[in-house]
Amino acid sequence: MSTIEVGMKRTAFFISDGTGITAETLGNSLLSQFEDITFDKITLPYVDTVQKAQQVVDRINRQGEIDGKPPIVLDTIVNDEIRDLLASCNGFKIDVFSTFLKPLESELETHSSYSVGKSHAINEMERYKDRIDSVNFALDNDDGARTRQYNQADIILVGVSRCGKTPTCLYMALQFGIRAANYPLTEEDMEANRLPEILQQHRHKLYGLTIDPFQLAAIRHERRANSRYASLDQCDFEVRTVERLFTKENVDCINTTNFSIEEIATRIINETGLKRRIS
Amino acid sequence: MSTIEVGMKRTAFFISDGTGITAETLGNSLLSQFEDITFDKITLPYVDTVQKAQQVVDRINRQGEIDGKPPIVLDTIVNDEIRDLLASCNGFKIDVFSTFLKPLESELETHSSYSVGKSHAINEMERYKDRIDSVNFALDNDDGARTRQYNQADIILVGVSRCGKTPTCLYMALQFGIRAANYPLTEEDMEANRLPEILQQHRHKLYGLTIDPFQLAAIRHERRANSRYASLDQCDFEVRTVERLFTKENVDCINTTNFSIEEIATRIINETGLKRRIS
Repeated sequence: MSTIEVGMKRTAFFISDGTGITAETLGNSLLSQFEDITFDKITLPYVDTVQKAQQVVDRINRQGEIDGKPPIVLDTIVNDEIRDLLASCNGFKIDVFSTFLKPLESELETHSSYSVGKSHAINEMERYKDRIDSVNFALDNDDGARTRQYNQADIILVGVSRCGKTPTCLYMALQFGIRAANYPLTEEDMEANRLPEILQQHRHKLYGLTIDPFQLAAIRHERRANSRYASLDQCDFEVRTVERLFTKENVDCINTTNFSIEEIATRIINETGLKRRIS
Repeated sequence: MSTIEVGMKRTAFFISDGTGITAETLGNSLLSQFEDITFDKITLPYVDTVQKAQQVVDRINRQGEIDGKPPIVLDTIVNDEIRDLLASCNGFKIDVFSTFLKPLESELETHSSYSVGKSHAINEMERYKDRIDSVNFALDNDDGARTRQYNQADIILVGVSRCGKTPTCLYMALQFGIRAANYPLTEEDMEANRLPEILQQHRHKLYGLTIDPFQLAAIRHERRANSRYASLDQCDFEVRTVERLFTKENVDCINTTNFSIEEIATRIINETGLKRRIS
């Protein structure tokens, strides 16, 4: 391996006294801007004691010696003592909280809470319940299985089988506490060329998903190889028919082909102005 | 309303040219450190043109006039032109990317990509597939419905009905691409006082969830009010029996009572050393 290639690989540590999700989300976002470097990413959550922090420092320093380059160290540690210890490592440090909390404190003219994990305790119970309720709602109202709770739905996703409805509903439930149902349009619905009765009643809650027929065929092929269901002809027919139906019935719709689950979910929320129940 | 009370409420904008999830996650994390201030949080995703940015600037400025205080403006905009325009607003600005990308560029001795959305396109297809596969796995293997795919599972959560298994599995699937199955221990299993045969075979993949009986009763009550299933006696009996079973069979276990879904998931991943499939 040449020197140049070695230089293209770096280790990054995302460190937190909590779940590590903030550190990881921000870290991934920052590092994704450097396309010509490969990062070995290591998330270390629940570093909430000085002892654990010392182990982390040792690990970072060892990794730096192996790599011959300082690891990137991004942390969202709240506790001063733990954060100071971590700052003694031989890494390239991105200290999110001291960077932003100090200026925020002056702007808001108040102190922030520095006790480990303190900030998370308060609303967790309510969030937990909201999420469980929303996940249960998504599961109970998945795949058109039940429709009698549609009056409680915040949104009802419609589209052909396997176009991404279920994961999008679950993501909306888990991330935002939104009650999302989904209904797969059947061949019967397509032949009738109209929305089924049950959906007509909730027309204002409908949002369509569509997808490139080639990708649909590939996804269906994994579930039921070489079936009529997975054939390109069938996928193409279904997608075209359903897209025409969306236009005819004035159902807003998003093409999911090039989007991640979070992009589909956030774009729909953005388009519809749907209110998040948790944040 | 007194002047002091007015000062306790601030508006915060989380702005992004993408989903807004990074801005929102970091923003929530920073603002949660200020417990004595109420924030009205507004996420504005997909601000990816100069026109949209100008509308956002106008909105921020209007809000600042209404509030009598500058709104907090946290953005993760990559494009220079859009970011510069946004910087002209009368808000208290937290510019995440210019704060951290510039020093990272010198450390990594390379330039970051500044094209809007460019960074997201590359691995999305792979991530999408991984997630869909994992969500399908979680759904197919939910609630002990099917057990024949347990050899493909990364982890199998066990516990009494309604202790948080399903949302935890789905979170692991969506957030980390982990293949998580779950199996509810039945009264039959409890009476036998041993793990069912199917779980014995996959003992190294098992992880237990337990919960405070009072909370369990409250959760079950919402599903089936005034049933034996939701009675405190029954919940207490099940939880105690299953906890003893976990100890006897050496199944590691987490008490979910005071944790959010993401905390349960990340703690289990941290304890087990389970590998994330996506990040």
